[in-house]
Amino acid sequence: MSLSFQINVTRDKARTGRLLTPHGEIETPIFMPVGTVGSVKGVPQDILEGLGAQIILGNTYHLYLRPGVETVRRLGGLHGFMAWRRAILTDSGGFQVFSLNELRKVSEEGVMFRSHLDGSSHFFSPENAMAAQIGLGADIIMAFDECTEYPADRARVRSSMELTARWAARSKKYFEEHKGEVPWGAAGLRPPADNSCTQSLFGIVQGGMDRALRKESAERTVEIGFPGYAIGGLSVGEPRELTREIVESTLEHLPADKPRYLMGVGTPEEIVEYANLGVDMMDCVLPTRAARHGLLFTSEGKVSIKQARYAQDAGPLDPNCSCRVCQRYSRAYLRHLYASNELLAQVLNTIHNLSFYLDTMRRVRHSISLGVESGFLSGV
Amino acid sequence: MSLSFQINVTRDKARTGRLLTPHGEIETPIFMPVGTVGSVKGVPQDILEGLGAQIILGNTYHLYLRPGVETVRRLGGLHGFMAWRRAILTDSGGFQVFSLNELRKVSEEGVMFRSHLDGSSHFFSPENAMAAQIGLGADIIMAFDECTEYPADRARVRSSMELTARWAARSKKYFEEHKGEVPWGAAGLRPPADNSCTQSLFGIVQGGMDRALRKESAERTVEIGFPGYAIGGLSVGEPRELTREIVESTLEHLPADKPRYLMGVGTPEEIVEYANLGVDMMDCVLPTRAARHGLLFTSEGKVSIKQARYAQDAGPLDPNCSCRVCQRYSRAYLRHLYASNELLAQVLNTIHNLSFYLDTMRRVRHSISLGVESGFLSGV
Repeated sequence: MSLSFQINVTRDKARTGRLLTPHGEIETPIFMPVGTVGSVKGVPQDILEGLGAQIILGNTYHLYLRPGVETVRRLGGLHGFMAWRRAILTDSGGFQVFSLNELRKVSEEGVMFRSHLDGSSHFFSPENAMAAQIGLGADIIMAFDECTEYPADRARVRSSMELTARWAARSKKYFEEHKGEVPWGAAGLRPPADNSCTQSLFGIVQGGMDRALRKESAERTVEIGFPGYAIGGLSVGEPRELTREIVESTLEHLPADKPRYLMGVGTPEEIVEYANLGVDMMDCVLPTRAARHGLLFTSEGKVSIKQARYAQDAGPLDPNCSCRVCQRYSRAYLRHLYASNELLAQVLNTIHNLSFYLDTMRRVRHSISLGVESGFLSGV
Repeated sequence: MSLSFQINVTRDKARTGRLLTPHGEIETPIFMPVGTVGSVKGVPQDILEGLGAQIILGNTYHLYLRPGVETVRRLGGLHGFMAWRRAILTDSGGFQVFSLNELRKVSEEGVMFRSHLDGSSHFFSPENAMAAQIGLGADIIMAFDECTEYPADRARVRSSMELTARWAARSKKYFEEHKGEVPWGAAGLRPPADNSCTQSLFGIVQGGMDRALRKESAERTVEIGFPGYAIGGLSVGEPRELTREIVESTLEHLPADKPRYLMGVGTPEEIVEYANLGVDMMDCVLPTRAARHGLLFTSEGKVSIKQARYAQDAGPLDPNCSCRVCQRYSRAYLRHLYASNELLAQVLNTIHNLSFYLDTMRRVRHSISLGVESGFLSGV
């Protein structure tokens, strides 16, 4: 068995659950730190484990370009390559290629694109995006989709959504034929208890900002059949209220007994909100990227640590946080590290922000279990 | 009591000992990682502790400019500011100011220099360099000296050495009058066992590459009287054989019962060699700086991790190293992180190189204790 999902407690639309993957159990709702090229920027894997990260995300587009799928495959897949023993999810590369704008050309067959590193030409089809993700060997991989731009007219959104549906079917077909090729055995990392277990492929719902097209996309994706479903194509520039409206309406058309993954979201407030709407999995570069720019999330609100007001502040970054950064260092020290452009600023800031996100989701799970509404716990 | 030094075992010129400071015991010979602006670049303090770092070094010049002595003082000195509970040593600022070349002007009174950060003018005298180091609050601080350039004619070396001797006397006078002002109490960090304990001031021997002037400098510095003595003014461009010759001859003129600190040295081979000559303390930016450039020290020699030959190398960086990097990650992964310009490359490379240096000194102490000659253990 490659994946099982068990719902423990439901409260209104929200639910807590356990997602069992070949590399460990995940408590849902979960936030997944992003490790773009096989590293959550600046954070050693043992510290990530200490923070309680149960699953991390890798980006297929980036890993495909560097170090290349074949290298990762030979080293036992991403688990062996980056020495991460817990669960991993890879995206399909669709969103990343979408972000290249001028460097890509979409056809029925797939997407021709140019590398942001050296301008070289590459081609992703549903089939070779699956081959790449099988070689990378994440526990959960994603169907190859087209992320529709925003804004887009209805005809464009429909044709894009239909292309994604056709690609989903091709992704599943290729995956079913090749899922035995996952390289876990190479580094002795195949879970010994069950040699038949392999990766799981999730489908992605598109349909832009059109509720009817989202419904149709959800129904067509469910019709193809996947062990989990993602909502893609959001956080592409639309207003936040619209994101929420589309998420809420799309969730109604996804099966309640399968994990639901909202891609690329969000702020601490948003991940709490979406968990309360019934989303089980989320990922976002915000906590890590903001950390590197000195923007820190705390129970008392956002802190821009570069500000001179913190230069002599002996207090912890967040008095309600038990992470190793807040337990040891002062705001004055963190401010000094940032102002001095010290490497350690990025390391410590990232550790704190991830800790804050993971703690936030822990509190959400707890409050769902207790049957109480969990607002964002700012100021608590 | 602020410092005690006990020699445990001597073997030829080498010795092992224990240096007791107000913030902990140091086993000598010791290598001190450099934390220029209050951070060993990229390495969180708890990881440094785990590596067994017993004492680290801060640079007075850098800390004076940013965040400023007053800020550090208010936050309990460097121990409180950077949350480092073990021993710290600060340099005098003399060598750093010397490195500014065109930006400085030396007089009997002191050195006028311009900040490398913003070009602003500053003045270091023996008195205010002591005031700065008292404010920073390291366990061991250094007399303000002039680091003589290389090459220099004999008259120039003599006058520079004599200036350093006069500055040493002024440094000691100011220190004796003000050593009660150390800010350890501010953050509750004054060691409770002995409220009278404070910092210790070491003298620095200069005299260029002239053995007679080095002897005279050593005698004059010992005449002034310090609880420890450093050899400065080396590693300034002279050939390595000359460095060794000057170190060896200078050591003969330093009291055997006091700790001897060789400043700014060196490669793994050199720190072993100097420990065998009777040096008790060393510091160098080499392991940390080289790490950030992908140059790694191992028991099998130097590894330039950026090389393509490591791209598929599943083995550990150093099969004889027990550090957390060698125990977990492959050369292929470290090579990928470096090639991808990932933050984690600098973090992991620095952790390994420091571990290698600290382990090297641990082995040297062990072999001195056993009464055997310790060569550099390359290939063992």
